[in-house]
Amino acid sequence: MKLKIDDCDERMLEREVRVSMKFNGRNVHISPSAKLGSNVRVGDNTVIYDGVEIGDDSIICNDAVLGEPLNDYYHDTAYQNPPLIIGARALIRSHSIIYAGSTIGNDFSAGHRVTIRENTTIGEHCSLGTLSDIEGYARLGNYCRLHSNVHISQTSSLDDFVFMYPFSVMTNDPYPPSSDFRGGHIDSYTQVGVHAVILPGVHIGENCLIGAGSVVSKALPAFSLAKGDPARVVMDVRKYVAMGKGKPYPWMNRFDRGMPWEGIGFDAWRRQQAAES
Amino acid sequence: MKLKIDDCDERMLEREVRVSMKFNGRNVHISPSAKLGSNVRVGDNTVIYDGVEIGDDSIICNDAVLGEPLNDYYHDTAYQNPPLIIGARALIRSHSIIYAGSTIGNDFSAGHRVTIRENTTIGEHCSLGTLSDIEGYARLGNYCRLHSNVHISQTSSLDDFVFMYPFSVMTNDPYPPSSDFRGGHIDSYTQVGVHAVILPGVHIGENCLIGAGSVVSKALPAFSLAKGDPARVVMDVRKYVAMGKGKPYPWMNRFDRGMPWEGIGFDAWRRQQAAES
Amino acid sequence: MKLKIDDCDERMLEREVRVSMKFNGRNVHISPSAKLGSNVRVGDNTVIYDGVEIGDDSIICNDAVLGEPLNDYYHDTAYQNPPLIIGARALIRSHSIIYAGSTIGNDFSAGHRVTIRENTTIGEHCSLGTLSDIEGYARLGNYCRLHSNVHISQTSSLDDFVFMYPFSVMTNDPYPPSSDFRGGHIDSYTQVGVHAVILPGVHIGENCLIGAGSVVSKALPAFSLAKGDPARVVMDVRKYVAMGKGKPYPWMNRFDRGMPWEGIGFDAWRRQQAAES
Repeated sequence: MKLKIDDCDERMLEREVRVSMKFNGRNVHISPSAKLGSNVRVGDNTVIYDGVEIGDDSIICNDAVLGEPLNDYYHDTAYQNPPLIIGARALIRSHSIIYAGSTIGNDFSAGHRVTIRENTTIGEHCSLGTLSDIEGYARLGNYCRLHSNVHISQTSSLDDFVFMYPFSVMTNDPYPPSSDFRGGHIDSYTQVGVHAVILPGVHIGENCLIGAGSVVSKALPAFSLAKGDPARVVMDVRKYVAMGKGKPYPWMNRFDRGMPWEGIGFDAWRRQQAAES
Repeated sequence: MKLKIDDCDERMLEREVRVSMKFNGRNVHISPSAKLGSNVRVGDNTVIYDGVEIGDDSIICNDAVLGEPLNDYYHDTAYQNPPLIIGARALIRSHSIIYAGSTIGNDFSAGHRVTIRENTTIGEHCSLGTLSDIEGYARLGNYCRLHSNVHISQTSSLDDFVFMYPFSVMTNDPYPPSSDFRGGHIDSYTQVGVHAVILPGVHIGENCLIGAGSVVSKALPAFSLAKGDPARVVMDVRKYVAMGKGKPYPWMNRFDRGMPWEGIGFDAWRRQQAAES
Repeated sequence: MKLKIDDCDERMLEREVRVSMKFNGRNVHISPSAKLGSNVRVGDNTVIYDGVEIGDDSIICNDAVLGEPLNDYYHDTAYQNPPLIIGARALIRSHSIIYAGSTIGNDFSAGHRVTIRENTTIGEHCSLGTLSDIEGYARLGNYCRLHSNVHISQTSSLDDFVFMYPFSVMTNDPYPPSSDFRGGHIDSYTQVGVHAVILPGVHIGENCLIGAGSVVSKALPAFSLAKGDPARVVMDVRKYVAMGKGKPYPWMNRFDRGMPWEGIGFDAWRRQQAAES
């Protein structure tokens, strides 16, 4: 059931009594055309504009802007804010700004000061770290994790279970400045190290590991451990032996926190998936 | 004609009726000594302090701080906020902070969470991307573009049409820590790639292209295509042939979006400029 | 003497008359359980949650969040906000977010949009630049300075007088993704250049100088001048001769701004310290 804004305000008033610390409904502005699901909590000073839909049990913290209008708004008097759809159980932390015109799946999590511009599609169970910046016209699959300060340029795309670490960046302009944007693409399970740069249009295969500070200028086949500027394939990740740790890659058999195979193991989950499809 | 604050508030009240989505005048604080031009719109929760002047037809979005006081304010009871002058048609997006004591030309555009400190001079038609950070005591010419997360240290300067890409940085301290700041200088038309570092006091000539992730430690002559750590001149940019694209540099004949030669071509514009001067 | 919130509000009202520019008490929310010292000023739109203690003569600027609740708050109805202790004379600039559950010493200074998460211990006289991001479970000694956009991962630690420059980062995950965090450690007086990456678990000795853009993958002995990817020791910093400057390292005899040896010299201060201990 979708609540109207009046119901929502009433709920927040009740909550104010129960929870003195946050979600006081102070200086909150919610457009009458926004649709908030059941049990959505909204922090102080947050603004939710026209056409925003937020799924049940979501939490929007303080000082956030949801449905930030596109550039046309400032010049076009007939401007209509395109919808921003956010799934259930979102947790969007304070000072984040998400534009109108994007779609975000269930179980989304955003750190502080995240920026997501228009025409971005984000799958389910994704998380974006503090200060991450998605420039719009981009696509993230399911279970992707961008840590702090990751920059995703327009026309970039990630498949599922791609993790990118602080200050890594996907670029899109082969001959700057131009308007011929060619974002790169990263296949599933790949890990992109801190400060790594993916140059425009580069395709990185599944299950790669990109070293810190690398500049990736050419396509990398699946299972590449690559590093350097320009990045070179050092070895197959499956041959990489960590001191006293065995072979840590692929990583899915040794890490499951928040993953769909949590508690059952990656192989069992894959078999489940295969059986269901 | 400069409006007084009372007129401005009245206009915003009218606007509130017409435009339900933004510019509601909610929780806006404008100093009585600020001078807002005609048709200036101010977003919710924004604060404009003493001595700020904003040109006609400008838009200041939500949660911004203009005229942020300098450090002395916190300790000196006789402190007076120095003026912040912003030209006409500015578009300053939400969560940006611009200090008192700077001058910004017409047609300025700022993304979200931009920081500009005092004693900064910015020419006309400049744009600063989300999270860009100008530390003050810096100079940008006309038509400069800093993309997201560019860091400009004190005493740095850029001529006209210089574009810098995400996470690039101009440094200023040759022997950290010191107070002997020597910012670098970049001549017109030069493009600085993502994650590039310009070391203190370095002078980069006109029309250079600095590769992603470079560390530029020495002066570069005009038309250098340079990359690496330390950056070396790979070739003259005019000799660079892009696959299937011909010679993309200098870039002014193939890119004109927002440039003064838009629609007429760079050479014709240069002839016009020469004839006028 | 600790003031109760009611006294504090009264003081802010008086102040509103005296100082028209800032600290108007507009839209400020302070938890009744917060304890503000004498002469603490709080900027507009700032929120201070349960369990925050702020020392005398501190300044908290606009749009800040102090005592940001931990993740458990969103899921645990019995959640109690752990204390956030901030010492005397803090200056926390606008848009900064500091979580509950940390301790910060006297004379702390934060730029804009700083993020500090829980279980962080910061010594006295530290300063954090605009956009710096401490992920929690970290430790900074005394007189540390993080410039803009420095990223400190969980379980990292710095001793005293460590300075880190923009976009430098301490990482903590040797085999990403894992939950086996091993932050690095930096000994006193070391300087970490812009865009430098300290890889997980690396121990950097006293008085090192890490070049811009370096990737430090192995322990460095004291007095190393190291640079490159991977970083190699180029020379002993004590042998480094700067053009026309003599030998700039160690730096403590030529730089004293804000240091405890300001005006008396490093060696005299060291003798004082030795005599006192």
